Amino acid sequence: MTSTTTKRSRRRRSRLLGDKRGLPPGTPVYTGDVKDVPVEVRVLDYDTDGHREHREGDIQKLAEYHSDASVTWINLDGVHQVDQVATICRAFGIHPLWMEDILNPSGRPKAEILEDRVLVVARMVHRSEDRLVSEQVSMVLGPGFVLTFQERAGDVWEPLRERIRGGNGRIRKMRADYLLHALLDDIVDHYFVALEDLESRVDGLEANALDPNGRVDMTAIFDVKSELADFRRSVWPMRESVSSLLKAEGGPIDASVTPYFRDLYDHVVQVMDILETSRERVVGVYELHLAVTSYRLNDIMKVLTIVSTIFIPATFVAGVYGMNFDHMPELHWGFGYPFAWLLMLGSAGVGGYWVYTRRWLT
Amino acid sequence: MTSTTTKRSRRRRSRLLGDKRGLPPGTPVYTGDVKDVPVEVRVLDYDTDGHREHREGDIQKLAEYHSDASVTWINLDGVHQVDQVATICRAFGIHPLWMEDILNPSGRPKAEILEDRVLVVARMVHRSEDRLVSEQVSMVLGPGFVLTFQERAGDVWEPLRERIRGGNGRIRKMRADYLLHALLDDIVDHYFVALEDLESRVDGLEANALDPNGRVDMTAIFDVKSELADFRRSVWPMRESVSSLLKAEGGPIDASVTPYFRDLYDHVVQVMDILETSRERVVGVYELHLAVTSYRLNDIMKVLTIVSTIFIPATFVAGVYGMNFDHMPELHWGFGYPFAWLLMLGSAGVGGYWVYTRRWLT
Amino acid sequence: MTSTTTKRSRRRRSRLLGDKRGLPPGTPVYTGDVKDVPVEVRVLDYDTDGHREHREGDIQKLAEYHSDASVTWINLDGVHQVDQVATICRAFGIHPLWMEDILNPSGRPKAEILEDRVLVVARMVHRSEDRLVSEQVSMVLGPGFVLTFQERAGDVWEPLRERIRGGNGRIRKMRADYLLHALLDDIVDHYFVALEDLESRVDGLEANALDPNGRVDMTAIFDVKSELADFRRSVWPMRESVSSLLKAEGGPIDASVTPYFRDLYDHVVQVMDILETSRERVVGVYELHLAVTSYRLNDIMKVLTIVSTIFIPATFVAGVYGMNFDHMPELHWGFGYPFAWLLMLGSAGVGGYWVYTRRWLT
Amino acid sequence: MTSTTTKRSRRRRSRLLGDKRGLPPGTPVYTGDVKDVPVEVRVLDYDTDGHREHREGDIQKLAEYHSDASVTWINLDGVHQVDQVATICRAFGIHPLWMEDILNPSGRPKAEILEDRVLVVARMVHRSEDRLVSEQVSMVLGPGFVLTFQERAGDVWEPLRERIRGGNGRIRKMRADYLLHALLDDIVDHYFVALEDLESRVDGLEANALDPNGRVDMTAIFDVKSELADFRRSVWPMRESVSSLLKAEGGPIDASVTPYFRDLYDHVVQVMDILETSRERVVGVYELHLAVTSYRLNDIMKVLTIVSTIFIPATFVAGVYGMNFDHMPELHWGFGYPFAWLLMLGSAGVGGYWVYTRRWLT
Amino acid sequence: MTSTTTKRSRRRRSRLLGDKRGLPPGTPVYTGDVKDVPVEVRVLDYDTDGHREHREGDIQKLAEYHSDASVTWINLDGVHQVDQVATICRAFGIHPLWMEDILNPSGRPKAEILEDRVLVVARMVHRSEDRLVSEQVSMVLGPGFVLTFQERAGDVWEPLRERIRGGNGRIRKMRADYLLHALLDDIVDHYFVALEDLESRVDGLEANALDPNGRVDMTAIFDVKSELADFRRSVWPMRESVSSLLKAEGGPIDASVTPYFRDLYDHVVQVMDILETSRERVVGVYELHLAVTSYRLNDIMKVLTIVSTIFIPATFVAGVYGMNFDHMPELHWGFGYPFAWLLMLGSAGVGGYWVYTRRWLT
Repeated sequence: MTSTTTKRSRRRRSRLLGDKRGLPPGTPVYTGDVKDVPVEVRVLDYDTDGHREHREGDIQKLAEYHSDASVTWINLDGVHQVDQVATICRAFGIHPLWMEDILNPSGRPKAEILEDRVLVVARMVHRSEDRLVSEQVSMVLGPGFVLTFQERAGDVWEPLRERIRGGNGRIRKMRADYLLHALLDDIVDHYFVALEDLESRVDGLEANALDPNGRVDMTAIFDVKSELADFRRSVWPMRESVSSLLKAEGGPIDASVTPYFRDLYDHVVQVMDILETSRERVVGVYELHLAVTSYRLNDIMKVLTIVSTIFIPATFVAGVYGMNFDHMPELHWGFGYPFAWLLMLGSAGVGGYWVYTRRWLT
Repeated sequence: MTSTTTKRSRRRRSRLLGDKRGLPPGTPVYTGDVKDVPVEVRVLDYDTDGHREHREGDIQKLAEYHSDASVTWINLDGVHQVDQVATICRAFGIHPLWMEDILNPSGRPKAEILEDRVLVVARMVHRSEDRLVSEQVSMVLGPGFVLTFQERAGDVWEPLRERIRGGNGRIRKMRADYLLHALLDDIVDHYFVALEDLESRVDGLEANALDPNGRVDMTAIFDVKSELADFRRSVWPMRESVSSLLKAEGGPIDASVTPYFRDLYDHVVQVMDILETSRERVVGVYELHLAVTSYRLNDIMKVLTIVSTIFIPATFVAGVYGMNFDHMPELHWGFGYPFAWLLMLGSAGVGGYWVYTRRWLT
Repeated sequence: MTSTTTKRSRRRRSRLLGDKRGLPPGTPVYTGDVKDVPVEVRVLDYDTDGHREHREGDIQKLAEYHSDASVTWINLDGVHQVDQVATICRAFGIHPLWMEDILNPSGRPKAEILEDRVLVVARMVHRSEDRLVSEQVSMVLGPGFVLTFQERAGDVWEPLRERIRGGNGRIRKMRADYLLHALLDDIVDHYFVALEDLESRVDGLEANALDPNGRVDMTAIFDVKSELADFRRSVWPMRESVSSLLKAEGGPIDASVTPYFRDLYDHVVQVMDILETSRERVVGVYELHLAVTSYRLNDIMKVLTIVSTIFIPATFVAGVYGMNFDHMPELHWGFGYPFAWLLMLGSAGVGGYWVYTRRWLT
Repeated sequence: MTSTTTKRSRRRRSRLLGDKRGLPPGTPVYTGDVKDVPVEVRVLDYDTDGHREHREGDIQKLAEYHSDASVTWINLDGVHQVDQVATICRAFGIHPLWMEDILNPSGRPKAEILEDRVLVVARMVHRSEDRLVSEQVSMVLGPGFVLTFQERAGDVWEPLRERIRGGNGRIRKMRADYLLHALLDDIVDHYFVALEDLESRVDGLEANALDPNGRVDMTAIFDVKSELADFRRSVWPMRESVSSLLKAEGGPIDASVTPYFRDLYDHVVQVMDILETSRERVVGVYELHLAVTSYRLNDIMKVLTIVSTIFIPATFVAGVYGMNFDHMPELHWGFGYPFAWLLMLGSAGVGGYWVYTRRWLT
Repeated sequence: MTSTTTKRSRRRRSRLLGDKRGLPPGTPVYTGDVKDVPVEVRVLDYDTDGHREHREGDIQKLAEYHSDASVTWINLDGVHQVDQVATICRAFGIHPLWMEDILNPSGRPKAEILEDRVLVVARMVHRSEDRLVSEQVSMVLGPGFVLTFQERAGDVWEPLRERIRGGNGRIRKMRADYLLHALLDDIVDHYFVALEDLESRVDGLEANALDPNGRVDMTAIFDVKSELADFRRSVWPMRESVSSLLKAEGGPIDASVTPYFRDLYDHVVQVMDILETSRERVVGVYELHLAVTSYRLNDIMKVLTIVSTIFIPATFVAGVYGMNFDHMPELHWGFGYPFAWLLMLGSAGVGGYWVYTRRWLT
């Protein structure tokens, strides 16, 4: 999430000011800004008996894999290669509007069902070289195949590929709709990693706010709040997406796979729960900060008021006896000086006692 | 958006205090304030084979274009010409209440379906001579025609007209319902321009608020908030409008065009998402501003308190030895003066140390 | 709205502590406090061909007007005349509970349908002798008649009566359900007048708050907020009312009149929109006021701190050389006095420089 | 309401720590704390022809009154007498879970329908010996009978009993479902009394807050807010209850009585409306209080700053010429003293002018 | 609840960073952190005639108890023993995804129905060795059996076991679905214990906030708020769970048991009501604290301002007559000294009077 804040605005801008406006809807134009990444197409074809894997095959031939007998997973890294995306989409009969969604990397996560095809657009968050990276992925489910389109190489699906290769677990025995679930499940599982990162920062803010000597960093609060809002914008529509897939029972997603999607739905809701709790905690830290600030101000003003209440009257007394009048009887008294001290201590004492009775010292 | 704030109240006033009250509903009276604009009627008639274009044709003859074979797009600039609007509306059998909606430029965006007619009222935002201009547009879809009514010349549809003239893309092959979609799509696309403008102002406010030396301008926060609220009032009903068009499947809008309207719906929801995020960001800036203000107050008071705590007691000591009593033994001590300095430094030190232990210096 | 705040509580009290409690529901007792108003019954009977108008007819004979051929509008000013209200209600077969609603002038606006009768209770706001007056009106629609009950004379329907008399427009050609719409439409149209009044006050508050030299009057903010809340309580149930009339298609309200009620619904929603925006704007003014207040406090404290930081140390130095010790070498230096000035200016300069580096001066 | 705040927690505690936990649901155990009240059973049996009334009849014989011909209203004061409650419940075939609800005086208001029985649990607020008392009442409607269970003697139903005895009004002609409505109607009517009490306290707070010399009592605001929240917790579920009774048309409640329940529903919604408005008004008073407090702080600081800005520099000048240097030319000038005054007045003037230009004096 | 805050994050972490990611969904892996607890399986088999109880029976033989004639309750303490959990689950035909839910102790409370099985995941709060302990329990209802899985030994069901053993009450006469209700009922009953603990802390905070000499502890407010939010996250989904069980009438839960679940639903809603009220009360305490803090600041500043306004001008006068000019006529007046006192008292009086007129002293 961290690296996406500045990119976000750039992307949106390119979406807006690019040459897209005025073009008819459905024209394949890439509107993102990840363009310096090599394009790669990987095909993973499997059934109960085994699997076949190809890297960078001839895109024209991809349609051949399209058979109902086996499950074909075609993954493309680098959606800026409009031609290749368009070729694949046409080969698998993808609606032009979906192609536009695939090429627009700042779209809203969503799921759509059209006849026997399902489009799911989601945000994938993963750790790459020790920092969190966020990118958009589009998945198209059709009979016997799943297409996945990523902005750049590197994803959260390597363990899934291993499972397919190894043939352990349920994956090789199931059909393409289960593959779609597995892809989404891995994406949502990695949301927890990002959540953990954010939660630990909220933990730090909270600990700081509760430490009497700690300093709350308003900028840090602000940052975490922004990232939580960003994250929320990715996860919120995800719930609708999975929910709409669940409701479309009997369509491209088989009833036997529905429990897995319901499980996925629960996970998304749990992510949303944790997000909401985090937001509330951040608001709590902000309120605590405000309260601590006003408490400190009171403390500062008390010090000033105590010092002033004690010394200002006494200083006045001293000033009186510093006057140079010819006729000031006290100046010539034998006990004039001790008398002045008495006055000074007395006035300081009255001031101090007055403050003391105010009870805001305790 | 910027120029509309002051106009808004003027418009509402004319709506209220104009001669409209008391008249029966459905009487054609223009209630807006854009009256000094030349009226122009443009007809664009097209089918798969070609297109015909007329400027300022005889309004009486417009009904002739009304044929199911071709798609006729009649655009009128300047709804203050009540006669011409009424003539067109009657020629195409528009309900009197819709005519009232068309003539009232401060109405709420909405969509209505009556038999084979669809009325969509929306707010169009576009850049004219380097500033954002907002005006109301009404669109009526009927069999084989679309009527569009604008307050003034200049709109966001020039590229669409070019596409129709050029015959590239899908537009010439589709019917009038697709034209309605294309019109709305261009309007929503231009919302992103206004959003970008607002977002960049929110970016500026945020950057300012996070800059330790920056000054947050409350008036600017206030302005952006007002404009976001204004914008929201335009976009929010738009979602309902498109949603109601989607639900009316099988009516004037053909099922084959529905996916395009669903796509449009997604865009409107995305605009709303960004708007909500912007609102939250502005609230965040406001809260940050409050926190920074109270932090600065603490800082100011700390300076005052430190200075006072150190110097007021010392000044008291100096005052004591400035008294003119006859009998003040210290004054005659050999080390009286250094002794006084010791007292002064000591009292300043005690005050300073007390402040230091309070820990609000760090 | 302005004059109703104090009356509201009186009314509610009479509703509560009056002799109504303990009586069976449906007993006709007037619970309002407008009792010094002359009662007047006006009958307006019309059909396509003409109209007949009677003032203060014999209430017993009213039922004769009750024919399906013409539309009869019977208006009663002064619901405190329980007998007359009861007589009319019985003559037209009104349910006792509705009679109770008509007699209770502090009820919640609502709409109810019972067989072929419709009861609509609404709040009417109009300008009488240059101030806004708010009163409750009850309308009963039945086959061929509309009864309207007002608390006092004077209403917003004079232009409607003129239209009926003049026979222009649609009104004379339509049936009683259209008359109900026309009555409600005029009531809602006058909400815009009250809105305009409130909006212009919010405008004034906003202008004041944004003017750097202006003073925000918290009491004025508070007043506007209360009136907006009051107004909202009148308009909010109105939306439900009109909505329930819309849903009851095929009942007492003919399908041909439904578009007019939908139009009315749009107007009510627009009033609510403007109300909500006004509320947000008032909140914005309040927040701005808080921010400005805290900014001014900072400003005040800066002045105090700067003066103190510069002069308190310098005054201390002056105090030191005002001491009367026998042995103070500086006092006898040739350049002692300039040296003291150096010290004083120096300490003031150090204080000033410290403040300067704090950067909260800019 | 006033007296219930402390009792509330005690009740809840007894509910929790009493011997109830671990017992099977449906075991009759009283969990309230009103135990020192004499138990009394009153039977009121009536039909169109007359009424029979018994006090403290033999509970075993109560079932005999259970006939469809007449309406039997059995009222029990003092639900802590578990045996008697259980005897009655068994005699009339009440479900054990409902018996538990009747015996638990801190339950949530609710309505339940089971075959031909209806249970309504509500909170009754009435004035007893000049203070508001709140207690729980349970009502069970069955064919030909209504059972009511109260915590203690004294209720809001005396006028209803009079109506039954007197035979005036509709009550004697109607069946048991109408009696249930009459009971609930009287309960809701008395909510307005409690509302009036709360409203007048909010009025007082508001008047105080708007009075420039008034003092807002935060504790009073806090109290009213708590009581409004308490009240709301009683009324909110009441709306659901009446709504669920309305939806169960055709069950134990006859369609002819439904309009009376709809009327009741309107009254409950009106109570909720007033409650919400009161809550908003209290929030408004709180915000006004905060604004006034910060305004006063500004005022206080202005006084301090003005005094300091004028006198601190002047005092510095006086201090300078109080120094005892041998060589201070000014001291020996003929016009030295007036010159010093000039300096002092000048510095005070500069300070005052600086403050004046800041414009926060106006 | 108290002890779970720190554990919560640890658990979530293990869920995220453990070896779970990448594994296919449904693989039995324990993701909690309670691993040092002895595993124990207890079987309680009962019917109307009697009951049989076994501790630590051979898990392989558990399936034998699975008969429709009697109700079998198998309880397992210590879900970290994955093998045993898996063995039991397989013996009773539990879906692999449910097994995953049982093994994940930080899951969201939920209820799911699959054919004739019901899974309920809930949070159990109970007092163990004088502190509140929170753990997750999973319950599976099938024909003739209920399985319960706990993280550790010790639960809230001992009284229920006693009731089964004793044969009193309804439990022995009912089937397994009633047992599920009894289990959930005991869990929800213990929520009231935790609520009582939290409520008494809120009571303390409130009492402190209203005590003029009390000190509100912001950290305590913060803690209670966090725990209320935590608790809410446990209870909120519980409502959905019970609601979904209620809607699934006619499935594994018999219609005769539905009233008991509806009763349970009411209790959960009551817990939520109390939770919401507590949250509002905590917010109220926070607001009161802010108001009190700002009131105290005003009080502190008033003291400072009064002292300064009275003594600073007087000190200035004293400073004037401490100057050493050769020609200062007042110094030589006979009544110079009393004159100076007059000036000093006068200036102090003017300052004091000015403050007095400001009225913020009262």
